Amino acid sequence: MTLRPMRWEGGALMMLDQRVLPGRTEWLRLTTWQEVHDAIRDMAVRGAPAIGVAAGYGMALAALAGQNLEEVHKGLAASRPTAVNLFWALDRISGLQTSDFDTLLAEAKAIEAEDLQANLDMARHGAPLIPQNAKILTVCNTGSLATAGHGTALGIIRTAHADGKNIFVYSCETRPRQQGLRLTAYELTVEKIPFKSIVDGAAASLMRAGEVDCVIAGADRIAANGDAANKIGTYSLAVLAKHHGIPFYIAAPTSTFDVTLADGDGIPIEERDASEILENEGGLVGPANCPVWNPGFDVTPGELISAIVTEKGLFRPPYDFKSDGLK
Amino acid sequence: MTLRPMRWEGGALMMLDQRVLPGRTEWLRLTTWQEVHDAIRDMAVRGAPAIGVAAGYGMALAALAGQNLEEVHKGLAASRPTAVNLFWALDRISGLQTSDFDTLLAEAKAIEAEDLQANLDMARHGAPLIPQNAKILTVCNTGSLATAGHGTALGIIRTAHADGKNIFVYSCETRPRQQGLRLTAYELTVEKIPFKSIVDGAAASLMRAGEVDCVIAGADRIAANGDAANKIGTYSLAVLAKHHGIPFYIAAPTSTFDVTLADGDGIPIEERDASEILENEGGLVGPANCPVWNPGFDVTPGELISAIVTEKGLFRPPYDFKSDGLK
Repeated sequence: MTLRPMRWEGGALMMLDQRVLPGRTEWLRLTTWQEVHDAIRDMAVRGAPAIGVAAGYGMALAALAGQNLEEVHKGLAASRPTAVNLFWALDRISGLQTSDFDTLLAEAKAIEAEDLQANLDMARHGAPLIPQNAKILTVCNTGSLATAGHGTALGIIRTAHADGKNIFVYSCETRPRQQGLRLTAYELTVEKIPFKSIVDGAAASLMRAGEVDCVIAGADRIAANGDAANKIGTYSLAVLAKHHGIPFYIAAPTSTFDVTLADGDGIPIEERDASEILENEGGLVGPANCPVWNPGFDVTPGELISAIVTEKGLFRPPYDFKSDGLK
Repeated sequence: MTLRPMRWEGGALMMLDQRVLPGRTEWLRLTTWQEVHDAIRDMAVRGAPAIGVAAGYGMALAALAGQNLEEVHKGLAASRPTAVNLFWALDRISGLQTSDFDTLLAEAKAIEAEDLQANLDMARHGAPLIPQNAKILTVCNTGSLATAGHGTALGIIRTAHADGKNIFVYSCETRPRQQGLRLTAYELTVEKIPFKSIVDGAAASLMRAGEVDCVIAGADRIAANGDAANKIGTYSLAVLAKHHGIPFYIAAPTSTFDVTLADGDGIPIEERDASEILENEGGLVGPANCPVWNPGFDVTPGELISAIVTEKGLFRPPYDFKSDGLK
């Protein structure tokens, strides 16, 4: 829990710039809601719960500046389309029906504190899924950096390790933005949890070799029937896990649930810029003007998910979160 | 067929340095077998058939220098372990039992010419597998650059396009070395075949969306039962194709078959350097000293392969290449 993606300090939102990790540790000092919007859009902060927390602080900054909160709500909501935690946090702040800065700042801080607690509770519910000597495959980054702290899927792994279990993690690189290699590998290194990074294409081989006891991933939006949007490549892992008879788990706080959607077909999937695939730090890699398809997320059908871990406990298929009264 | 990975010229092997494509077109002038060895090891040339062709010329260069061909054979054989075409070409040259340069050069040229012809024949046999209006998923590079010319899997695609079929290609990036993005996208651009590049993790989504009518890949070594080693990530695509009811094809010349192996368990899988995952043109991306697992290849079981296309025709499962008398 040493790592945190942001903190409120001196009337500003201090945000760790995750785009330059692990090479450089740089903090951005955000003082306007537009800066928060841009930080979300440009992925200085990412991870569904962390985006929600950031949006809350963005509203507080707007209140401090005496801005029209209805318009700011709309503006922040336009930063990224898939993770529902963003809209959940904005609705929660707007639901207070006040423009009083102190009230909004307190609510933003409450969202952050509750997310941290939700992660700790989720980890407590989820850790029993991790057997002694487990080899665990995970994707993207779902740790302290993706949340208010501790993490969702990686939080469960962190707690299993802290509980003294002998575990080993395989971290999928997660192209195109390599959050697995840049962020999860960084968190695992900091936490001294034994692991190896692999390219996304190597997961199937690893499963076939008997090197994966379970897969655990986060989510950006979960529909009423358990269909779960998450980082592109997650659905691939779910199909591979099924083929190899390996349990596949999702960990997400209830702020990630969108029971207004019957299934995953209604989840908007963000398509991101071609440059994420075509370029790296050294410049252009692919051919100039190479056409690409670059969806940020995919949807894993609920029937491929062995269990969904939330702060309220474990759910098993068939999922019916509307009847379960989540949110 | 405008692209070629190498040519014999002025007593030297001129080799296109595929490591800097598509950004730069640089030709290496190789005059010793050790230079050929290093070009194979360091992947200036790659692709199972192209490696075999290069090895043939390496033997010719050693004969020209009056070197001990038995030792050179061993030396070249140590350049890369998985693609069997390398050993096949070396055995073919050594089988002549002569150190006469002209004889060896003629044989190296024959290997090259026969590979080109095999690709054209393979494409003729394979093109009927591609339906009109097909959307085809492929991985790594299996085109002119990976062979003496035209290509294996990409050769079939090229011929289907040249036949006037309306086709669309999805090219998997193929981490870690991105041959799909760097080389296949380059060849498709040159050939004006409509395509998009995707990250490897996006293939499953594409299949689920009904955007893939067939998958076609190359191979580096095929065992007697049809188990096929190919670029890491290929097995993943085969499992995903099966899950989505999509045909999965392999295209390879008979020089890629190793019927001394009953199944794929005997195929040595090269593990390559961590830097391939951890670094890019801009330097280190992952954490310093990040542990990785970086296999260059995986093995797709024959039962997941809908057909194997060779220059001798199409084979369907169950495969029994030993009885079929291949090689």
